[in-house]
Amino acid sequence: VLAGDRRAVAQAITVIENGLPGYEELSDEVYRATGRAWRIGVTGPPGAGKSTLVDRLVARFREAGRTTAIVAVDPSSPFTGGALLGDRVRMDDRAGDHGVFFRSLATRGAPGGLAVAAEATADVLDAAGFDVVLTETVGVGQSEIEVASATDTVLVVLVPESGDSVQAMKTGLAEVADVFCVNKADHPEASLVVRALRQAIELRAARDDGWSVPVVQASATMNEGIGNLMDSLYLHAGCAETQRASRRRERLRVRVMRLVESAEREEYWTSGRQRALESALAAGDAAPYGAAAALLAARSDPA
Amino acid sequence: VLAGDRRAVAQAITVIENGLPGYEELSDEVYRATGRAWRIGVTGPPGAGKSTLVDRLVARFREAGRTTAIVAVDPSSPFTGGALLGDRVRMDDRAGDHGVFFRSLATRGAPGGLAVAAEATADVLDAAGFDVVLTETVGVGQSEIEVASATDTVLVVLVPESGDSVQAMKTGLAEVADVFCVNKADHPEASLVVRALRQAIELRAARDDGWSVPVVQASATMNEGIGNLMDSLYLHAGCAETQRASRRRERLRVRVMRLVESAEREEYWTSGRQRALESALAAGDAAPYGAAAALLAARSDPA
Repeated sequence: VLAGDRRAVAQAITVIENGLPGYEELSDEVYRATGRAWRIGVTGPPGAGKSTLVDRLVARFREAGRTTAIVAVDPSSPFTGGALLGDRVRMDDRAGDHGVFFRSLATRGAPGGLAVAAEATADVLDAAGFDVVLTETVGVGQSEIEVASATDTVLVVLVPESGDSVQAMKTGLAEVADVFCVNKADHPEASLVVRALRQAIELRAARDDGWSVPVVQASATMNEGIGNLMDSLYLHAGCAETQRASRRRERLRVRVMRLVESAEREEYWTSGRQRALESALAAGDAAPYGAAAALLAARSDPA
Repeated sequence: VLAGDRRAVAQAITVIENGLPGYEELSDEVYRATGRAWRIGVTGPPGAGKSTLVDRLVARFREAGRTTAIVAVDPSSPFTGGALLGDRVRMDDRAGDHGVFFRSLATRGAPGGLAVAAEATADVLDAAGFDVVLTETVGVGQSEIEVASATDTVLVVLVPESGDSVQAMKTGLAEVADVFCVNKADHPEASLVVRALRQAIELRAARDDGWSVPVVQASATMNEGIGNLMDSLYLHAGCAETQRASRRRERLRVRVMRLVESAEREEYWTSGRQRALESALAAGDAAPYGAAAALLAARSDPA
């Protein structure tokens, strides 16, 4: 992996994604070799044009001579695995370029959850020497936001359909965004959305790191505004340089907490506690808080 | 609340939403008075037209003489509270109708999380005597899916833009859907998506409850196909009648487990464990799994 061997990289990711034997040691060893790559998280509602935009960014990074890895986080369902797949053929035209690595992560069963697996995957690519690691999510649920946030620079992509962007804002995207991109800039309401976003950002208290979140208009399909977007991303990378160490420390903190909590959760429902739960529920007047309180009170003897 | 007093209902929901003193007792007492209402969860990606569709369904239920409550689960961010709000004026034209109750839930800080708060809110409306309680989510993240799933009938709304529906399927919606509605049926690709969905459903193993998930085409804005959709919903309600008791018991089980886990999580990071975490992270070679393992090993003395 450290030598940048593509097959080793792919295998390491598979081990981590599926929690195969030894994935903890592998993750930790790889982790210690990280710190060089610029990690960019891309999130936004479905249909915002994230994939096309990511393709444009990859093209720019390649022009600038930077090797780039893309992690597409797809919490695939086993049900849809076969029947509805096939939106990921897009990277094929870069198949000959060894400076690009594309990986789709189907991490629903990954130990520790989506965010942990995505971050460990980015670690592998960082350790393998990629200059830029782009982590892209499919939706804007809480876990997708966590995935995108575990990076150096968070790019939130919105579209001008007012309902969409309002709803996206409500799901907590605003707090994590380092750069906003309003895609489909040719839409009649694009400038309206940009103005509303800028206003909302101004109204907010200044960020601790002093960074003022830019709102960039672009059109991924027409390849317009991508230069401006790149400028904003680079600007944030520069400004964030001093913050990077503390941001990474904080990320490690969150990650360790997640691992501990998920290990605890797995251990929690012992057979004794399961039985206690069943009998609490079997009580004729079982109601949620009463049952929970009874269980928590009884936990001193988990049998 | 039990007398159906609207002000009391609104106040009870506020107490639950914000975890005000006594919310546990209130929740449990209200819970014991539930079981009459038909609970329908509506979910789907942003922009699928869920709100308009819900409005149409409400109109039909009202025509049939059924009182209806709508819970719109909006995990609002404090940041967007003022600047980007205002998509929820739509219920105003029903303001004079006492058979309709609309409530938007901003539950990011609610104790136990989104799903617990939404279910307790539905309990209040059930206990207050509403015939139908529609719980609608904004997005399709994991927590939104949990919210919608904690109902008797889960309606998943998709739109024919192929990317959207494929992505929506990937986020785990397929497992929870009792009825699919492909909205914007006038779209050229609508029948294609319907066919793909039906095929995917057929390929899947039969459900334990014997229900075969229907896929209905509709156009909420043009008010077309709503009758068919209503038929499918009623059909599921009828079929689910026998399943309802076991489904509710399972819901209570999940809910109690969530409450216990969230109480445990809150208690977990004692000051002693926080200190242990900090020192694990301060170690020069700190890496995620090593640090987590050290913490878990040291947990016998949490100080």
